This record gives sequence, C-alpha cells and structure tokens, in this order.
Amino acid sequence: MATPVETDAMRRAVALAARGLGHTSPNPVVGCVVLDADGRVAGEGWHRRAGGPHAEVHALREAGDRARGGTAVVTLEPCDHTGRTGPCSQALIDAGIRRVVHAVADPDPTASGGAGRLRAAGIDVEAGLLAAEAARGNEAWLASVRHRRPFVTWKYAATLDGRSAAADGTSRWITSDAARAEVHRLRAEADAVLVGSGTLRADDPHLAVRGVPGEVTQPLRVVVDTEATVEPGARVLDDAAPTLIAVAEDADAGHLGARALRLPRAATGPGLDIPALLTALHQRDVRSVLLEGGPTLAGAFLAADAVDKVVGYLAPTLLGAGPAALADAGVRTIAQALRLDLAEAVRVGPDLRVTAYPRRPGGPSPAATAEEN
Amino acid sequence: MATPVETDAMRRAVALAARGLGHTSPNPVVGCVVLDADGRVAGEGWHRRAGGPHAEVHALREAGDRARGGTAVVTLEPCDHTGRTGPCSQALIDAGIRRVVHAVADPDPTASGGAGRLRAAGIDVEAGLLAAEAARGNEAWLASVRHRRPFVTWKYAATLDGRSAAADGTSRWITSDAARAEVHRLRAEADAVLVGSGTLRADDPHLAVRGVPGEVTQPLRVVVDTEATVEPGARVLDDAAPTLIAVAEDADAGHLGARALRLPRAATGPGLDIPALLTALHQRDVRSVLLEGGPTLAGAFLAADAVDKVVGYLAPTLLGAGPAALADAGVRTIAQALRLDLAEAVRVGPDLRVTAYPRRPGGPSPAATAEEN
Repeated sequence: MATPVETDAMRRAVALAARGLGHTSPNPVVGCVVLDADGRVAGEGWHRRAGGPHAEVHALREAGDRARGGTAVVTLEPCDHTGRTGPCSQALIDAGIRRVVHAVADPDPTASGGAGRLRAAGIDVEAGLLAAEAARGNEAWLASVRHRRPFVTWKYAATLDGRSAAADGTSRWITSDAARAEVHRLRAEADAVLVGSGTLRADDPHLAVRGVPGEVTQPLRVVVDTEATVEPGARVLDDAAPTLIAVAEDADAGHLGARALRLPRAATGPGLDIPALLTALHQRDVRSVLLEGGPTLAGAFLAADAVDKVVGYLAPTLLGAGPAALADAGVRTIAQALRLDLAEAVRVGPDLRVTAYPRRPGGPSPAATAEEN
Repeated sequence: MATPVETDAMRRAVALAARGLGHTSPNPVVGCVVLDADGRVAGEGWHRRAGGPHAEVHALREAGDRARGGTAVVTLEPCDHTGRTGPCSQALIDAGIRRVVHAVADPDPTASGGAGRLRAAGIDVEAGLLAAEAARGNEAWLASVRHRRPFVTWKYAATLDGRSAAADGTSRWITSDAARAEVHRLRAEADAVLVGSGTLRADDPHLAVRGVPGEVTQPLRVVVDTEATVEPGARVLDDAAPTLIAVAEDADAGHLGARALRLPRAATGPGLDIPALLTALHQRDVRSVLLEGGPTLAGAFLAADAVDKVVGYLAPTLLGAGPAALADAGVRTIAQALRLDLAEAVRVGPDLRVTAYPRRPGGPSPAATAEEN
C-alpha cells in the first residue's frame, strides 16, 4: 500500500509530467518525485523533451545522495531499454533506491520490463497508484501506442445553438479572449495542429502558438488541402513553425515542394483518406493532433472514427442562423448519433469548456476509465 | 446585522419558498421561519397556493406562543394589504414578534408598506439578508411585476453541435431520462407551457406534467397556432390540464370554442404578436411561461426580446446534420448575436444543463444580479 506521502508525491509527479506536453513526442510525458529514506522530497523531475534525460534521471540528479534508501514515485513504469538515454531501471538501482511506486505500466514493448528488472535487483515495486489520473495526463501517448496513430482532439467553438458563425459568415469573436488563450495552450501541448482548406480560405489562420508562457515547441501545422489550392501567401506557410500540406496523390502540388504530403483520396466521398493521413503523421513522430476544423473536416474525422476527444468552447450566445460547428459526419438517423461521455464542463471566462470522449464499442479508452475513478 | 442563525433560517426560508413554485400565481413564492426568543426554530411555513394563507401565517401558527419575543425570517417583505387573507404585518405584530428579517423588498405597490407598519409598531426590521438568493428563487414573479408580462424561460434540448433532431427528423431521445424528468419539474413550476404548431404537428406533445412527486398544479397548456390548424384529436386538447390555442384574430377557429385565444398577427413576419400573447397570458394570472419550442417559435420570442432565461439540456452527442435547436432570431451578423450570461452548468445524468440569462441593455435582471453575488 502506498503511503499518503507517496500519494501526494504521485499527484505532484502527474503535475510535473504535464509540463512536458508538446515537447516529448514520440515519448510519453513522465514526472518523477524522489523521496529520501525519511519520506521527504529530495528531488523532482520530468521528461522535458525527446532525446533529453528521462524524468527519473532529472529527479535522481536533484536528489543526489539523498536518493540512497529512498523511494522513487513516477507516473510511468521506468523504462528498461537503452535508447538515446540509458535505462531508468539501472539508474534507479545505481542510485540505491529502495522502493519504486509507479502509476501506469509501460505499454510500449520496446521500453517495458523496467519493473521486472527493479524487482530482480531487490527493489520493492508497487504499481497502479493514481493510475487513472496519470493515464489521463498521458492519454495521447497511451492511445497512440494502442492504436498506432496519433490521438486526435477535435476542438471547436460554437454558440449555445451550435453555430460557428453568423448568417453572413462573420465569426470574430464568438468566444472570449480567455477561451482563445486556452486554445493556444492546447496547440502548444499538441504535436500537430490540423485544419481543412475551407478554414484556410475563410480565415487564413496562422496556427502557430502565441502568448503561451514558458518554452514552446511549435506544433507541426497541417492543412488538409486535397486539391492543393493553398495560396503561396497563406499565413500558414510562413516560417513560424513547420507546415505540411496534405494533398491528393494526383493533385498539382509542385509549388508546395517538400511541404506536400501526398496521400490517397478517401475511398468514399470527397477529401483524403484519413487513416492514411494519421499513419503518415504517426511516422513523423506525431502522437497528438489538435483538429481545429472546419465543420467538414471534423465531420469526416468523426465519420472515420478518428476523433478521440472533443473539446468544445461554448459561448453563451445565440445566433439562430449561420453555419453549424459540425457538418456531415455520416449520421442519418438518431440511432446512429455519435455518443460521447461527458468528462468535464468548466467555465473559461464567460464561456463554457466541455470535454467529452467518444464511446467506442471496444470499451472505454484509458482516458474514459480515468474519468470513472 | 443578521446573526448566523438568522442566515441559516433565511437559507431554509428560500428553500421552503421554492416548494410553492407553480402553485402561487399571481402571488410570489414566499418562505418564512420563525425563531423563538432564544433563536431556536419555532415554526416554518411557505405560501402554498394563491388564496391560501401567506408563509408568515403558516409559520406563526406552527410557532404558537413561542413566536412571542421571537424573530420572523421571511424571503419577501411582509405584505400590508388585506386581500384574500389579512395583512401579514398585522399578524406578526399580533403574535408578539420582536424582530423581522426579510430578504427582498416587495415591489408590488398594492402589497408593499409592510416594513413601515412593522417599524411603526416598534418591531426591529432588517432588509436584504440573502437578497440575491431570494430574488433568484422568485425571479419569475419579480420580473413579471417589473415588466407586466410573464417571465419566459426558453427550454431546449440539443446535441453538442446544436441539433434537435437527426437528418431524417428522428429525435427520440436526444437527452436522457434524467433530463426529461427535470423538464417535467420545470413544467410543474411554471404557470404555462408554450409550444408552436410546428412542434404540435411533429410531436403531438401532451405537455402535461407527469412523474413529479408531491402535489402538482397542472400548468396551462398554450399552443401558438396562428392559422388554427390543430387537429381535434391532438393530445394537448385532452382534459389533463387546461389548454389555450392562440390563433390569429382572422383565423377560422370556430371548432376551438372557448380554447381559442384570438390575437393580432405579428407586425412583421409570420405568426402572432408576441407581446400581445404575453399580455393576454398575464391577464390570466400567468406569471411564468416555459417555452418548449420549437426552433421557429423560440426564434420569434428571442427576436421579440421576450426570453428572460434560457435552460439548455445538452446531450453529449454529435449529429452533424439535422434541424438546429434554434431558427431565425433576427440575427444577421455576429455583432447582433444575442449575448447571455452563463449562470450555471450542471450535469443531469449523462447530459449537461446550461442556464443563462440574456443580457439586457437596461442592466442585469434581478436574477442576473443574484448570480453576481
């Protein structure tokens, strides 16, 4: 049984892990707190960026000699493989750690086995402490390991009656400054930000992260532009962040150079093959995608069962006319409605942020499980 | 300054008052707690129905001799007029009450003056304790006094993308059993329930209250049916509750008999003159209306600035096609968007109930003020 001190340390480790969001792919985010033999915090760390030291290494360094005889509390099972860094299991053994408490077992077959090696070295290992919270904090990476594609969060902004713009197309601003600032944080935490060519034409969005404090790794900007219609002067093509333009294999995309990502067309309907797009992004180490619209692309993703999380910013506003936030998602009748589980509804300034997870026939996702606990 | 005991008593009085919702019109809901000279609860009461004793009388009866030297804590300033019952101010004086704490001053000119009479009799009177909560609990009556028309709550049910039905028109059930049970409570608390002829044709709703525990006063059922198209067999015409069919003055409505409410047509657009409809209902002692749709009627009410409160039941469901929960409300461009203040977002079973109040140029309504405090 974990002690209350260890539980507090795990809660802190989950918070530390979140600092890595957006910087660690293709690795998970991980947080670690080292307690000395008397149960006092001796060191803290988190995995700051892919290729850099793991959370355990940061925390052990900070703890120094105080790690000897102590406990390492870590959000994910310590790794047992030598990649760009050595195995954390060995580092913990070398530091004289007596006990390891981790939240979530490592599902990655190339990295797992750490708990076994620790036990073999005589270290007391306990698994599962605050597993739900830790899994929620790592939901994108865990799902990407499971599904071998990036975790897709569809973010939308709408009025209480589901409109994303007024009858004449005007939409600035439906949601508040506070909600828009949050969207920049969501972008910063994602590996890629995705829009369709309709949004590109309507809004000429920049898609880079602005105004987020601290170090920001700009996400890959991805435009689904089947016919390669993007204008050379589009803001998304500037140098603020890398950009990929996903186009049909047969599109005339010579002007896009290395930015063109050629993909098969969808088997049915317009647009590109969404699973192929996600596979291509996964191969580029993208583990999390923030899908920002518009309604047509969001509908295509939902119809392809390629949305893992929905974050809606609902403005307390009514329009009564104008385009809907979501277009055709393949639903014809109420029995086919896409059902979600509401995870959270929180005020953001004057607006409401609603977070929900699609129900999947295969049972709840790790994240949905986290919500239940 | 009110004591903590008096604050607790006022909180209780606000809760007691709410038991009267749906039964007291054209009177307000009122709750009263009588504390004895030692500050112990000696009696409780609420205004149970129009024509019955006021809250203070119920509480004084329960307190008996213990009221002497005690304190009456009441959500609304005690009345000073003789209507179907005698003035509460005199009843409090006769009972030997030493102190009266009330939350909200009586805005009704025919009933106010109670505080003055009490003070003249040497009673210590304090006003304003938990005024915001008490005003929220009486929001319909307070607004109806101020605006001389019923307080209108627009209730809708929609998916997260704002649809009230799927592409083929099917809609049963978008929201959960829990949300539908709440709607029956909202009906029970309203004096009238209002739908348009489109909803009548599509759903043949019954509109009576079912499944609400305790005594229920069935609300008046009102159908806005400009051309008097309602079929004689419509469920809304049964005897479960009184029904009015609001029709145009020139409509062929002979078959409706006394149920026809003849009103002028709207000056612009289709339908009836909404202010005239509300005035006619006010004259029939209706102080609160639950507007249940459909989207066209809701849009007309919003365009007429005749909605005082919005209660949306949002199902964590996406449709991507199908009719919107709200149709034309006269908004063409984003600057004309109908802005509301979000008061509450609460889970109801798997769904989300969102409560919001339209922002009015004349400043916040009493209810919106309550939210601020």
